Amino acid sequence: MKDAKVLLAHGGGGRLMHELLERIFLPAFDNPALAERHDGARLDLAAAGATAPLAFTTDGYVVRPLFFPGGDIGRLAIHGTVNDLAMCGARPLWLSTAFILEEGLPIETLERVVASMHAAAAESGVALVTGDTKVVDRGKGDGLYVTTAGVGAIAVRPGAPAITPGSVRPGDAVILSGDVGRHGIAILAAREELALESAVESDCADVSPPVLALLAAGVAVHCLRDCTRGGLATTVIEIAQQARLDIAIEEDGVPITPAVQGACELLGLDPLYVANEGRFIAFVPEADAERAIEILRRHPVSAGADRIGRVGEGRGRSGQVTLRGSLGAGRVLDMLSGEQLPRIC
Amino acid sequence: MKDAKVLLAHGGGGRLMHELLERIFLPAFDNPALAERHDGARLDLAAAGATAPLAFTTDGYVVRPLFFPGGDIGRLAIHGTVNDLAMCGARPLWLSTAFILEEGLPIETLERVVASMHAAAAESGVALVTGDTKVVDRGKGDGLYVTTAGVGAIAVRPGAPAITPGSVRPGDAVILSGDVGRHGIAILAAREELALESAVESDCADVSPPVLALLAAGVAVHCLRDCTRGGLATTVIEIAQQARLDIAIEEDGVPITPAVQGACELLGLDPLYVANEGRFIAFVPEADAERAIEILRRHPVSAGADRIGRVGEGRGRSGQVTLRGSLGAGRVLDMLSGEQLPRIC
Repeated sequence: MKDAKVLLAHGGGGRLMHELLERIFLPAFDNPALAERHDGARLDLAAAGATAPLAFTTDGYVVRPLFFPGGDIGRLAIHGTVNDLAMCGARPLWLSTAFILEEGLPIETLERVVASMHAAAAESGVALVTGDTKVVDRGKGDGLYVTTAGVGAIAVRPGAPAITPGSVRPGDAVILSGDVGRHGIAILAAREELALESAVESDCADVSPPVLALLAAGVAVHCLRDCTRGGLATTVIEIAQQARLDIAIEEDGVPITPAVQGACELLGLDPLYVANEGRFIAFVPEADAERAIEILRRHPVSAGADRIGRVGEGRGRSGQVTLRGSLGAGRVLDMLSGEQLPRIC
Repeated sequence: MKDAKVLLAHGGGGRLMHELLERIFLPAFDNPALAERHDGARLDLAAAGATAPLAFTTDGYVVRPLFFPGGDIGRLAIHGTVNDLAMCGARPLWLSTAFILEEGLPIETLERVVASMHAAAAESGVALVTGDTKVVDRGKGDGLYVTTAGVGAIAVRPGAPAITPGSVRPGDAVILSGDVGRHGIAILAAREELALESAVESDCADVSPPVLALLAAGVAVHCLRDCTRGGLATTVIEIAQQARLDIAIEEDGVPITPAVQGACELLGLDPLYVANEGRFIAFVPEADAERAIEILRRHPVSAGADRIGRVGEGRGRSGQVTLRGSLGAGRVLDMLSGEQLPRIC
């Protein structure tokens, strides 16, 4: 298939679609559920050592360019869905993938994306068990879009509160898993072919190992959220609004690498609103905070974990997020209208 | 939001995306899982009266035009995923939806699609529990694409064979649930603004009720498949090849309405390869065939069910499908290279 391109017929259900399935998808995603080639996959919870309740999530990926320093659309789609399951306190188990391919896409590009998805799924121990491929006319896509959905087994101990904004309590510590802003800056640099002084790589990664370690250790995790679109600031504002509690963030507690800081200054971006793909915040009771940080730091993906703020007590409860600088002055953080950089995931 | 259009910022994770969520998605898909607004939904199997094993499936929808006689992309996306779960012998329970919107899409169009999805989901008794929205630049989409994934509870009795091509046995009866070719012709007529002599409506429908009735009655269903892309012929060929068994289909047994037959003759299409969205084939042991047909006919969506063929005994096993005409002459059916009509689902 060297030099071959995606044709409309590759999405037509006929021989060419079956060829695509047999030559590209089945060998790459090799597993018994997919090999049955039925309309869906059978999920054997017992064989996976999983019990109900389950978590279920989906995300579409339209990032541009498809390949960027530190990742690509395929790896992003796997990590993104694995991370959303982890944010529900779930062990990621099974993923689906639905491709929308643009007519004329080099088959070689699809192969690279599929290989990357396979590698990322294998690293995370998840199986790509079911999928779909559609082809749209030239000019009606942008190379390829992919949508993943995932199912995982919720690993919260029976009796513990559900991991959701509604479980956040006054006085909870806010822990951030590492430095912020790398994914958005890496995408922007790749898209605009900016020659930054220091190269910035996306932080795109699977954050489920440290999350599952927190739960296994019995840390009373109240809420988790990955700081993707809209960055750290938007994520904290979302939780504050949904929990109807005020949150104070210490600006100096938020790690930003000099390369990201420099790029943001150059481009006029606020790093707190720049997207991440391997960073999350955890809300835990103050009593568990030190132990949680210690557990997170044992994992490379969250080695930079630290406390960045605190949920306010009693008064307020308006869902306001205040950023406190080193001089003690505070400013209220607000959601941006959109995203500083479109199509970053 | 009258006359409003989708902006890139609607996909940016900020205030506009939250507005879209609050004004359009949450009210339409109102349910507790979605209302939590977390990164994924918690699936409570016990509350749904569901037990493992589960089925999991996904499909992307890129149909053009978005609205057509008998349905629209939203209804198609719900029915399609519900039907794929039914084809696994599963009771459909939970669905996810991931939108890819093109910048400039009228918000009113999105609202119509979302309302249609909600109505279809309510009719099928499934909950839209988690979702995602991305926006791509003008010219990099075609209005909207939507990808649904679904989870259902497999309703096959313990000890019964799995519903999969590998369970098909020599001598099995092949039952078709109704007339074929309507969806593809309805789409083509809408797209090309063809004035057909008789209007043709898509057969787009939820086929899970008759399938679940077969299983509840203890019919030993060996395999099920909906005759979507590639039509009835491709579906039968897929099963024959995957089961490595020959299948003979009686041409006169396949119902085709005069309107579809006429349109196909006019357009030079073979109705056996034209897509359906509410038709399926069932493979059952000969001993169960009459009872299965009787059960299917009790449901409006499969009122036209009848036997159309038989899986060959012993010899052959090459995975060949033969179409036998009224004069006794047979021709071997082969997969088309693609689909006669692109982007029908």
